[in-house]
Amino acid sequence: MTRLALGVSYDGSPWRGWQSQSHGQTVQDQFQRAVHQFITEPVMTVCSGRTDAGVHALEQVVHLDTPVNRSLESWTRALNGLLPPSISVNWVKPVTSDFHARFSATARTYIYVVRNDRIRSPLVHRRVGWVFYPLNLTLMKEAAARLLGEHDFSSFRASECQAASPVRDLQQVDIEQHGVYYVFTFKANAFLHHMVRNLMGTLIYVGLQRMTPESVTTLLNDKDRCLAPPTFAPDGLYFARVDYPDSFNLPQLSAQENFKLHFGFLG
Amino acid sequence: MTRLALGVSYDGSPWRGWQSQSHGQTVQDQFQRAVHQFITEPVMTVCSGRTDAGVHALEQVVHLDTPVNRSLESWTRALNGLLPPSISVNWVKPVTSDFHARFSATARTYIYVVRNDRIRSPLVHRRVGWVFYPLNLTLMKEAAARLLGEHDFSSFRASECQAASPVRDLQQVDIEQHGVYYVFTFKANAFLHHMVRNLMGTLIYVGLQRMTPESVTTLLNDKDRCLAPPTFAPDGLYFARVDYPDSFNLPQLSAQENFKLHFGFLG
Repeated sequence: MTRLALGVSYDGSPWRGWQSQSHGQTVQDQFQRAVHQFITEPVMTVCSGRTDAGVHALEQVVHLDTPVNRSLESWTRALNGLLPPSISVNWVKPVTSDFHARFSATARTYIYVVRNDRIRSPLVHRRVGWVFYPLNLTLMKEAAARLLGEHDFSSFRASECQAASPVRDLQQVDIEQHGVYYVFTFKANAFLHHMVRNLMGTLIYVGLQRMTPESVTTLLNDKDRCLAPPTFAPDGLYFARVDYPDSFNLPQLSAQENFKLHFGFLG
Repeated sequence: MTRLALGVSYDGSPWRGWQSQSHGQTVQDQFQRAVHQFITEPVMTVCSGRTDAGVHALEQVVHLDTPVNRSLESWTRALNGLLPPSISVNWVKPVTSDFHARFSATARTYIYVVRNDRIRSPLVHRRVGWVFYPLNLTLMKEAAARLLGEHDFSSFRASECQAASPVRDLQQVDIEQHGVYYVFTFKANAFLHHMVRNLMGTLIYVGLQRMTPESVTTLLNDKDRCLAPPTFAPDGLYFARVDYPDSFNLPQLSAQENFKLHFGFLG
């Protein structure tokens, strides 16, 4: 048996999330179907982080075990030929059997892109979130600073979340403005179910001055999802990077570099 | 009667081009349907340049005449509410009756984005053209320089082209590289049918070293479409800007600025 790690990108908009379901309309189902066709036997895959319906991946990392011996180049080319155009394999690398896409990961980074303009853009429909009224960047940054660090994120956790603990270490929340766009970067050891979209819902409320930056601290202390603003749309959310120990020797571009690999046409 | 000019953006991938057809699956049909719903009477529109099936617009300029008196803000909001998410109205301005979206235009600018990488990107599927083998930028620039100026572009004109003359003045062909992307900018007084996609097909052949930059001059002199490389895909083509005399006082962002309004999330 060889264990392989794969870097996978996808447009999440046509799919009902990563995780396999009986209807088959998920990224994992499509991915496993393509691998099955290639190696002519069924395979199970493990991902570094399950993404919701509509959420994209710049680089999801997946592992699988296979007795089949093919060149790495043929894995990439064959799978890209078999996958629908909304899913691609960027690289394939053999890893030692102690590598686990989920449990070996030490951190995850997500990027959220919001268009803040009176007019939607048809060219990035389902690729960015959209906010009609003007956002206040200073207030959103104040709120973001209050989220940093190790907290009980119960107020930002979906009711269906299966994690044993609601405590997560949020290591980075950056917000950059480029014209009508705001780009949010979130890095944590791991995220709860819906956590980024729930944090986004709250930061957008702060940006619209529907709540104060200080109330974010109150929300964290309340530990009650019902008191927090609604979950924000999945459209602008990108799973952008997974950190692994150097010893596994995987391609490790930064979240920004992964973003540029897809959207860097403007330099 | 009031004459209105409108700036319109669209994702061309779901539509069979701009020009109205009996099946109704064109941008013009969708646009006129939305205007009809808003002002409750049928309307004819004139565009600055017809785009092919699959070709996008960052800013198509359209004019129409209407007896209906509404605020410009309500035109924009109502039409954006009635149009599908793949089409938007960016601005609406009253113009004098001598304005004509097509005949008043003094120049048009198109942008073509090519991804040059072994791996496709699912996130920009149908938004960029794709070339697997490495392109040579120096050779493509040499070929582009040979296309500049006033020429008989018969070798780059679709057989169905209805223009009276095959002579056009190509004022600008720029090629910029950003990572795995090449961004081509074409500006001319006007373009023949399929002209940008045909020029792209030839520049890509030069970039792949399937023909020399010098042979572009030969092709121009041959005036024979059958001798030139095939038409390139519509996926990465954007109608980016129309020039009008200043006296019409229309919003006139540059092609680059229009591009950034949609794709400028990276600054």
